[in-house]
Amino acid sequence: MIQMFYEDTLNSLSKIYRANLVNSLSGFKSANLIGTKNTINQENLCIVSSVIHIGSNPPLMGIVFRPNVVPRHTYENILETGFFTINSIDHSIIQKAHLTSAKFSRNESEFQAVGLTPVYKKDFFAPYVDESKINIGLSLEENITIESNGTHLVIGKILYIETLKQAIDSDGRVSLESLQTTCISGLGSYHKTKLIAQYNDIHLKDIKK
Amino acid sequence: MIQMFYEDTLNSLSKIYRANLVNSLSGFKSANLIGTKNTINQENLCIVSSVIHIGSNPPLMGIVFRPNVVPRHTYENILETGFFTINSIDHSIIQKAHLTSAKFSRNESEFQAVGLTPVYKKDFFAPYVDESKINIGLSLEENITIESNGTHLVIGKILYIETLKQAIDSDGRVSLESLQTTCISGLGSYHKTKLIAQYNDIHLKDIKK
Repeated sequence: MIQMFYEDTLNSLSKIYRANLVNSLSGFKSANLIGTKNTINQENLCIVSSVIHIGSNPPLMGIVFRPNVVPRHTYENILETGFFTINSIDHSIIQKAHLTSAKFSRNESEFQAVGLTPVYKKDFFAPYVDESKINIGLSLEENITIESNGTHLVIGKILYIETLKQAIDSDGRVSLESLQTTCISGLGSYHKTKLIAQYNDIHLKDIKK
Repeated sequence: MIQMFYEDTLNSLSKIYRANLVNSLSGFKSANLIGTKNTINQENLCIVSSVIHIGSNPPLMGIVFRPNVVPRHTYENILETGFFTINSIDHSIIQKAHLTSAKFSRNESEFQAVGLTPVYKKDFFAPYVDESKINIGLSLEENITIESNGTHLVIGKILYIETLKQAIDSDGRVSLESLQTTCISGLGSYHKTKLIAQYNDIHLKDIKK
């Protein structure tokens, strides 16, 4: 049985139904924890499913922030201080990571509240998550407003990467699966993965930069 | 064993190694086929791993396009005509979908070249993929240039959705897993998924719109 939604039926759906539906449609999403600190050293940690690859030369990553939802402190800290970390979520920390999406006040550390460990590396300003198997330190490069709905796309430049050597193959591929990295669908569903196909030749021909 | 990469070591890596590495870091990615048509009715189909959720009210999705790589015809068609489709990739069409990333000339249809079927629904200008279990029709809302590296974020508004009724739960969640939707890691690795955790209450409290 086919289910169809038109523009006007979408408008008439309940808020929750439409949010669940539209959040599912883009496909599986990345699962990461964003670590920040404000100018008075208050640490903040927040799960996002909106980290995206922007480019490899220069090495850039992006995060989409919706206005006025939970990651607001994270967004403010990034703009205020210019630094943040992206930390992977593996199966063992899904529940703790998900809990960071609850509402916490400005002066609470989500690290402490959910039981994850902040760690500082190489004098970098923002905290990494010790339990994560991929830690990335970034500086703010660009803050773009998406006029269509007032969301923001924050672009960061990678300054530091740390992961397990045995997860990286000789061509630079990191096996997210061997690190038990989770992926997200919709608003709160977490999945493990199993590799079913790998192609190398076609895409790589087309990397110009 | 820990592997570390600093900003200067990243710069000195080979192009392929750095592309593989940085493309892996953001986490798992969505897998979709973008269907377009130009003004002289030439159809185009292209796999992307850069479709993202932008917002649910209004229902918006985004695609990141790198300049001068394979999806260029797709990007040009979207700007030229204002319409495109997003179509899911399930396990059974991974190889065909991946082949659309090879270089084709402007007057070749990737549909025909790889063996996927263009289908038109409800007088919509752009072709859908008949084999896909989720079909979405969108109109161009916004085209944003990311100054840091010259990539583009194209924002589309959802005009039409079609999927299987049995994949949608009573709260609007679409089970991508029951549709055997694949996800991508790095540049060419395809994965199936298995649900390992689901939380509903926390995120939903924070949906403001």
